Amino acid sequence: MPDTYIRSVGTALPGPPIDNAALARRFNQGAVWQQWVESFVGTRVRHLALDLETGEQRSSLADLGEAAARRALSGAGVDAASVDLVVMGTATPDALMPATVNLIADRLGINEVPAYQLQSGCTGAVQALDVARQMLLTGRHRTALVLGGDVCAKHFDVNLDLAGRPPAEQVNGVLFGDGAGAAVMSVDPGAGLPLRIEHVLLRLTGMNRPPGQVVDWFGMADRGDERPGVLEDYKAIEESVPDMAVEILEEMLADLDWKRSELAYLLPPQLSGRMTQRISERMAVPDAREVSCVADTGNNGNALPFLQLEQALPLMSPGDRSVLVAVESSKWIKAGLAFEAG
Amino acid sequence: MPDTYIRSVGTALPGPPIDNAALARRFNQGAVWQQWVESFVGTRVRHLALDLETGEQRSSLADLGEAAARRALSGAGVDAASVDLVVMGTATPDALMPATVNLIADRLGINEVPAYQLQSGCTGAVQALDVARQMLLTGRHRTALVLGGDVCAKHFDVNLDLAGRPPAEQVNGVLFGDGAGAAVMSVDPGAGLPLRIEHVLLRLTGMNRPPGQVVDWFGMADRGDERPGVLEDYKAIEESVPDMAVEILEEMLADLDWKRSELAYLLPPQLSGRMTQRISERMAVPDAREVSCVADTGNNGNALPFLQLEQALPLMSPGDRSVLVAVESSKWIKAGLAFEAG
Repeated sequence: MPDTYIRSVGTALPGPPIDNAALARRFNQGAVWQQWVESFVGTRVRHLALDLETGEQRSSLADLGEAAARRALSGAGVDAASVDLVVMGTATPDALMPATVNLIADRLGINEVPAYQLQSGCTGAVQALDVARQMLLTGRHRTALVLGGDVCAKHFDVNLDLAGRPPAEQVNGVLFGDGAGAAVMSVDPGAGLPLRIEHVLLRLTGMNRPPGQVVDWFGMADRGDERPGVLEDYKAIEESVPDMAVEILEEMLADLDWKRSELAYLLPPQLSGRMTQRISERMAVPDAREVSCVADTGNNGNALPFLQLEQALPLMSPGDRSVLVAVESSKWIKAGLAFEAG
Repeated sequence: MPDTYIRSVGTALPGPPIDNAALARRFNQGAVWQQWVESFVGTRVRHLALDLETGEQRSSLADLGEAAARRALSGAGVDAASVDLVVMGTATPDALMPATVNLIADRLGINEVPAYQLQSGCTGAVQALDVARQMLLTGRHRTALVLGGDVCAKHFDVNLDLAGRPPAEQVNGVLFGDGAGAAVMSVDPGAGLPLRIEHVLLRLTGMNRPPGQVVDWFGMADRGDERPGVLEDYKAIEESVPDMAVEILEEMLADLDWKRSELAYLLPPQLSGRMTQRISERMAVPDAREVSCVADTGNNGNALPFLQLEQALPLMSPGDRSVLVAVESSKWIKAGLAFEAG
């Protein structure tokens, strides 16, 4: 079977960066709240697809996905007509139908090819890369556009009375961000220095465990319901994710017969600035350079691995080995992607 | 690469069958309305996951998917521990996160394997079968559980004043149904008479065309919006789907070098009883036996191809060649599945 390469990565973040001071102003919080966010969440900045003052949505997932895809295609020097497969991961499609991936393909002028959209959380980018890769491996396709992104505008209430909410709900307002990423994956390495994919690990591990995160949707008939749309079990997430990240890393290294000391770059799970820092420490790969972005982008779910890959790609030299690790707390999915430059 | 087989199919429909007389009573419509539905929609019966009197949701997609999967696994004589891949298609997941496929896997005792959920409409079952098949072809997996289903309860308003609505909206209340289906797909043909998959066609063809169907969702911040959650362009659907179905059939036959006269069974797109009848006539395969179900199940989206396959499987004799055709009007996707018994 052929080798598969990530030839380029592009990303798109909406609007201006929104720092914690701006959030504090919007939600009538003071300096103490802001310090609490900096210390315990550690996310300094995020980008939102809506106007923080009015709540009006300014970018759709299709907008961000299209922009990221254009950058990835241009980076690889690949035109739309050469793309013979499109795969996207998101937890927050613009609508249930049509799948957002089809609208993005339309805007890019990609047609007469299969397009798939995976409903997925923090491991969705790896899922999308994996589905595309398997389809390249069978030889049915040669050049895939792979996308991931999330827009939380429908669930983000700019008029929320934060002070009256428990911290677990307040955190949702500071933790998340919006964005999209894209990569060109091909059996052809292209002209630049590509990332050759060496291994993908994906595994549901949620048996008999309640979800750590639930994001619901409302329809025409139940939109009056007062049930919450987003629920997180932060305690379970804090307890489980660092251990899962270590397990993924160790299993990947064992599968590949790679040593920890051989890793040039580590792309750890991106939960919040603070959590990611703790997870990286636990993963204990001191010789690898860490590539993280969440503190400056917010947790934008399916976009995150693309943001990390975009940072890593220009840094890597031929032969550099790297591992990306992602954990989905919604129903506990382990994901890993191992790649080597060149 | 290995052959891939559908070894068994199972389905699940919620609650009692609901005929047009029951809908007429619920929505205060008379005999004329009922005759109009019978003549122009042609769907006699559907199954709903909610109680028609109270609107209370009685079954989730996870419930129906679990039931269908248990039947498929039992039909193939495959236990949960042998399943090394799960792929599902749906337009209406129970929640955005976790993906419903993960909850179903959990209930079945399937763990430590990859699980993927495709966001998709009427071609979703073919997409799910295709993703699973590609992963069997690379040799990474041997036995896949493939699911599809839809539950429209969140959008189905039992208190809707039908009389005050235009026919295009009234039709939504009679056209759709709920249900789920599942299949065991394997590189091992198993003990019974399996269906060997010969060809899959999947192609986005929506460039520069507006969607024929839009199904939206509401979040915490926009659930007060009065915009409609479901929109269909029935005129575009009626105009496009029959031609697209013929094109899919002819392309499949050409790809396979099969003749129309060699088809033992034809599984046409399932839109409504009446539309499906017209599409079948247009497809003009007089020697093939048609396998349709929508008039007695309602349009339950991602479940439909499994309902058709379940009907076809016990009828087929070794060497029988058949084609399933599906069309997604949301953004115009062509899908076809060709299989031969034995």
